[in-house]
Amino acid sequence: MTGTDDAFADTPVAIVGLGLIGGSIARGLRQAGHRGRLTGCVVDAADVATAERLGLVDHVSTELGEAVAGAALVIVAVPVGAMASVFAELGAHLGADTAVTDVGSTKMSVIADARAGLGKAIGRFVPGHPIAGTEHSGLEAGVAGLFNQRRVILAPTPETDADALARVEAFWQSLGAQISEMDAAHHDEVLAATSHLPHVLAFALVDTLARMAERTEIFAYAAGGFADFTRIASSDPALWSDIVTANRQAIGPVLDRYIGDLEQLRAAIAAHDGDTLVAAFGRAKQARDRFAQRSTNDKA
Amino acid sequence: MTGTDDAFADTPVAIVGLGLIGGSIARGLRQAGHRGRLTGCVVDAADVATAERLGLVDHVSTELGEAVAGAALVIVAVPVGAMASVFAELGAHLGADTAVTDVGSTKMSVIADARAGLGKAIGRFVPGHPIAGTEHSGLEAGVAGLFNQRRVILAPTPETDADALARVEAFWQSLGAQISEMDAAHHDEVLAATSHLPHVLAFALVDTLARMAERTEIFAYAAGGFADFTRIASSDPALWSDIVTANRQAIGPVLDRYIGDLEQLRAAIAAHDGDTLVAAFGRAKQARDRFAQRSTNDKA
Repeated sequence: MTGTDDAFADTPVAIVGLGLIGGSIARGLRQAGHRGRLTGCVVDAADVATAERLGLVDHVSTELGEAVAGAALVIVAVPVGAMASVFAELGAHLGADTAVTDVGSTKMSVIADARAGLGKAIGRFVPGHPIAGTEHSGLEAGVAGLFNQRRVILAPTPETDADALARVEAFWQSLGAQISEMDAAHHDEVLAATSHLPHVLAFALVDTLARMAERTEIFAYAAGGFADFTRIASSDPALWSDIVTANRQAIGPVLDRYIGDLEQLRAAIAAHDGDTLVAAFGRAKQARDRFAQRSTNDKA
Repeated sequence: MTGTDDAFADTPVAIVGLGLIGGSIARGLRQAGHRGRLTGCVVDAADVATAERLGLVDHVSTELGEAVAGAALVIVAVPVGAMASVFAELGAHLGADTAVTDVGSTKMSVIADARAGLGKAIGRFVPGHPIAGTEHSGLEAGVAGLFNQRRVILAPTPETDADALARVEAFWQSLGAQISEMDAAHHDEVLAATSHLPHVLAFALVDTLARMAERTEIFAYAAGGFADFTRIASSDPALWSDIVTANRQAIGPVLDRYIGDLEQLRAAIAAHDGDTLVAAFGRAKQARDRFAQRSTNDKA
């Protein structure tokens, strides 16, 4: 369900970071008819003018304290690598009842950053991760419906209080998202497999090919399959470097497993061992077809 | 340009194999107003009825000799692994002036198969590869416009005669394809990088994840990036096992290079070495953005 919720629609909301995710949240709240004051925080003065021109929020500032003053919900939508410094500054500016959430792709690292920065206010923090995005970034990249019918994982800590959790749930519901709860460590393992590893593999492939002598011809003859396979390699390099290093403990084992599996396929290819290849490709096709079928059902 | 060519439109054409590619050729020729008789060859008797119901060709048979009788152009559109047996039988049924082409994803292996099967008629053979496809397969999967404005690589051998080449060029032009010529060995290297390797990587990833204990949850939380990255893992396993083993000499080195690059990234992730990651991801993004930009321009 997208739309206003009587309890939540009047809530003053501050969004720290107005990139793809923060900007999409702002657009989504506007579209949902949110009545509470929307404020935003950006790093660069130039982005203040852009945010104002786009009308993303009611007030935008480069000062974190000014941006979050009076907010009952603060959404930290900065890259994973910038979470620590935001949380370090945020603690001093929070109201006693303000709830805080984030949208980071890793949860263990963000929880550690929040714990360090918020101190006793850690109970007001609800770790979150919307499973949505595009390969684009920046203030102009946001899309109002980005979270509609998409999954959001919340990973409350033992300290997270029930009111803060309820407020964050109401927020995501107002954007039409489907909320699941998951343990933070488990979140990081699941996302390492489904999102972080594919990004590493796609970046690596394009980089490998781009450094080959025949690169111009290689890209000239690449078609639709290649375009789809490598779309995520157009994602922001610094953002993904941060995510991958922040979640290195979960990514390492699955990347090792993948490299080991690739080496087995490499040996099968060299040995002209069609049986091993057909078996592996067949298991993959079966799993991928099931995934595609379920995704289609989810949308129906 | 799609449409009839006065010289080519009356040419009797036989299509051996009416799957995704062969079926799309038949549909494309119909749509282009082809007037010459279209015949088709399928392996299974059940497929005769399907081809007739779909009206793919004027006459369909399970007998290769019957299917190609009277054809001035024979298009061999069977999986790479079935090329040898088709060519072995085809030689005995060709008219003196019949041109032959294929649509295989590898060219060195198909040329070897054609040379073995066609003998002295090898001069009538024009190796070809349309850079187009979908992850679907079968008689029902064809699409009339599949080759419109898509690249087709022709890889003539030293023996290929000019008339046969001209006829195959006219055929692809009638479907709106853009023709390039390339040496067969070079074709195999380029396609190993842009198509065969990505298929291996996508199959391998889905298989790796499907064999993990958390597989159900992993696929449940996979989103759009994963869906795009793994789309080609829904391709036909046997077809791709054949392609990969047929082109193993070109795939081996690029797969080794990729595994080596992945191992370096793995080390950088473990060492928390953001500089190496940002550099690699940045090179990839730059190359991928250029590719996307040029693809957009190509379509404009």
